Amino acid sequence: MNDNLQMQSPPSPEPQLHMSADEFRQHGYALIDWIAEYLDHSERYPVQAQVQPGEIAARLPDAGPEWGEDFANIIADFESDILPGITHWHSPNFFNYFAISATGPSILGELLTAALNVNGMLWLTSPAATELEGRVTDWLRRWLQLPDSFQGIITDTASISSLLAMAAAREALDRNIRSEGVSGRDLPRLCAYTSEQAHSSITKAGLALGIGQENIRLIEVDADYRLRTDALTHAVQADSEAGHLPFFVAATIGTTSTTSVDPIPQMAQLCKRHQLWLHVDAAYAGVVALLDEHADLLQGCEQADSIVTNPHKWLFTNVDCSVFWLKRPNLLKRAFSVVPQYLQSAGEINNYMDWGVQLGRRFRALKLWFVLRYYGRRGLAHHIREHIRLARLLADWIDGAPHFERLAPVPFSTVCFRYAPPHTDESEKDDLNRKMHSLINESGAAFISQTVLNKQFSLRVAIGNIQTQEKHIRALWQLLQDTAAQVIS
Amino acid sequence: MNDNLQMQSPPSPEPQLHMSADEFRQHGYALIDWIAEYLDHSERYPVQAQVQPGEIAARLPDAGPEWGEDFANIIADFESDILPGITHWHSPNFFNYFAISATGPSILGELLTAALNVNGMLWLTSPAATELEGRVTDWLRRWLQLPDSFQGIITDTASISSLLAMAAAREALDRNIRSEGVSGRDLPRLCAYTSEQAHSSITKAGLALGIGQENIRLIEVDADYRLRTDALTHAVQADSEAGHLPFFVAATIGTTSTTSVDPIPQMAQLCKRHQLWLHVDAAYAGVVALLDEHADLLQGCEQADSIVTNPHKWLFTNVDCSVFWLKRPNLLKRAFSVVPQYLQSAGEINNYMDWGVQLGRRFRALKLWFVLRYYGRRGLAHHIREHIRLARLLADWIDGAPHFERLAPVPFSTVCFRYAPPHTDESEKDDLNRKMHSLINESGAAFISQTVLNKQFSLRVAIGNIQTQEKHIRALWQLLQDTAAQVIS
Repeated sequence: MNDNLQMQSPPSPEPQLHMSADEFRQHGYALIDWIAEYLDHSERYPVQAQVQPGEIAARLPDAGPEWGEDFANIIADFESDILPGITHWHSPNFFNYFAISATGPSILGELLTAALNVNGMLWLTSPAATELEGRVTDWLRRWLQLPDSFQGIITDTASISSLLAMAAAREALDRNIRSEGVSGRDLPRLCAYTSEQAHSSITKAGLALGIGQENIRLIEVDADYRLRTDALTHAVQADSEAGHLPFFVAATIGTTSTTSVDPIPQMAQLCKRHQLWLHVDAAYAGVVALLDEHADLLQGCEQADSIVTNPHKWLFTNVDCSVFWLKRPNLLKRAFSVVPQYLQSAGEINNYMDWGVQLGRRFRALKLWFVLRYYGRRGLAHHIREHIRLARLLADWIDGAPHFERLAPVPFSTVCFRYAPPHTDESEKDDLNRKMHSLINESGAAFISQTVLNKQFSLRVAIGNIQTQEKHIRALWQLLQDTAAQVIS
Repeated sequence: MNDNLQMQSPPSPEPQLHMSADEFRQHGYALIDWIAEYLDHSERYPVQAQVQPGEIAARLPDAGPEWGEDFANIIADFESDILPGITHWHSPNFFNYFAISATGPSILGELLTAALNVNGMLWLTSPAATELEGRVTDWLRRWLQLPDSFQGIITDTASISSLLAMAAAREALDRNIRSEGVSGRDLPRLCAYTSEQAHSSITKAGLALGIGQENIRLIEVDADYRLRTDALTHAVQADSEAGHLPFFVAATIGTTSTTSVDPIPQMAQLCKRHQLWLHVDAAYAGVVALLDEHADLLQGCEQADSIVTNPHKWLFTNVDCSVFWLKRPNLLKRAFSVVPQYLQSAGEINNYMDWGVQLGRRFRALKLWFVLRYYGRRGLAHHIREHIRLARLLADWIDGAPHFERLAPVPFSTVCFRYAPPHTDESEKDDLNRKMHSLINESGAAFISQTVLNKQFSLRVAIGNIQTQEKHIRALWQLLQDTAAQVIS
């Protein structure tokens, strides 16, 4: 885009009018070129931004411009002032959090969504937005072998999907909570349950709904980091006996630290027995069920009340795109529908604004439709399968290396391990691995994560970028070994 | 894009690999061309989609494809199967809800955001995302003459911004609600207040937080649809005397039906006296304060605790982009921060994930930065000023027409009115205007809204698209008169 620098003009003394079609084409082509280069060569950049806190802000003026500026100037500033502060989630060497991918079809879908700029709050406000959302969530549901009793909706994040699940579960209690609220009433204490390895968003949903952190029981896990059903049963019984009101259980398929899978069928039985809402957080790993060899992954979920999986995690769709299915959307409507006069519309149609908190709804179905069609089920499965193979490969190398130690099973594409040289105690091992984590990430060569498992500091590698190949995993393994040698010496 | 049809290929028996740079360029250019055409000629399409419920869904197969498809096919299907179901928010003849604009710089900003695909949850996960968000929210704050005690954050919607405000207000009560929750405790009933003309999102926020619909007091308004401070005072006192716990007041600058402005300074006094959180919903009209002649619009807001305005409404930024400022972000952190091991990071930095419910955060600051710089304050003011002028013009025509009647003041760009021919009673007037509303929207020539004011069915025209010019308002006025003649005959 630097070619455009010569086109810079001084700030205009006239207000900018609408960007003309010619100007849009010129800058649009330039951006498409830049992105095409970027997508193919994002590994040229250090993965973690090499800047200090405040450094990017200091490059930007305190106040915005009075007069409009040439778009080429803005793009030039993006390259010089913003790009150095970008951590490259698109790099094939990004192994932190859950590694994700924006892909060509999803980026172009988002572009078209931005241009159409429809708000899919009502059917009427763009029938295609509502109906395509129904279709693509249904396509994905079929691929994941979920029963057709589940109806889908696209939200921004699993955080919101899980909040909606908890709100629907609260409404299912039939305690007039919508009308009377929760405070100042003779209501028992509401209690929710999830594993101590569950995602923080479950707790956050409870905080928002006023459940209270101490009433979100974090149930202990077994040696493989799976929720212990006996502990859950015990907790539910204890709360019931204390006069509290258990109402919600969140199971996880692919916990964030180790990607462990909770025992869904047993949890579903328990929930049925105690009339508890079962929500399944499959934000990361749910999509694995579209691989033929993992078609049984979601077994038991057919008995759940709701389930979420995020195409923006491991289905090659840029953020944000979270798919949330539930069997009784009417409960969401009962919990949330508020229809003022200016939003009233007639007929038997889905107005998705009634299904949640947010009135404004981007047309997210479009990019997901692009992705599902561009890759097809088998294409998507191919890439996910390759990531699982790469993780298995890394796990095998770790298992075969005398001074490395794997710290959790590897059911999917995430590997937890540590460097464990002989004659070091736990505290020394923690220090060594902490140093390795910092050195690797600060190098910019790769970006890995960390967690704590059984009080042991663990390195964590999550594989999920569509451009990550075996050569990147080999290079990472070399880097890990080199860095280990460095920190021990 | 139809030129690409000849490039269609049969479904590939090989999994699609990553879209190549060449392929991305080819389809990217084609989409940029399509969008450039669309932005310039969106008025060629009927504004309201001319389809029946189910019609778009019926064009789409029940199941997604097993194998990937050529991208050109997908785009061809977008044009043939999706586009007919789009209601054209981008049309200059879109006057429903609040009319909005995606503009060149915002669309290109969204494109770049999709490609970078960063999640701005932590400072570390892209320092530039966090620091640019701080900068652009600060630029806008200055332009709106808000004091620097307000710190900004970008959320997806005003619905979430207002939910965060209410959650922070609840946390400010210092009643251990984060830890103990609300139910099963000896807490008084929490009460929130807003006007009966406030946006439904205030009520929805209360439903999510478990306040209960009957504890969200909808305070009556005066003849100009502004909240009556005496009624608010009375309600707060009555609740306090009943042993309830008033905690939150939402004022509106630009209510949805009539764009009325609540008496902020008086409400701020009252809130100070009763120690209530004052939140200002200026989602639509807040940006008017960047016009020199309306620099005093937000007077009184300096005493508020929080305020929201939506660049995706009237600041030429595509959805979603809502800017939320509050003085005590620490309360949001107290309410919501949950930091698991794998998200821990060191140092004195802003991790915006701690400021709200959603962990995933798109890099929305980029498109807002593009818009603020491309237009500059004066450029943005120019377009807003023009919309206000056009609304005034339409209001004057209505006032001068013997058989039309304006139903509310026009402080900004929205006009409420009805056709009121002589010798018709209220019920007949309602019927006539209802018919006009349907006929106009079904014609596809313009898309107007409706509301009910003082039990009278009202037509409502909201002007906000950057391409809406005087000629479009003239054509609309002609259409209104013609349609009136049609329904009366």
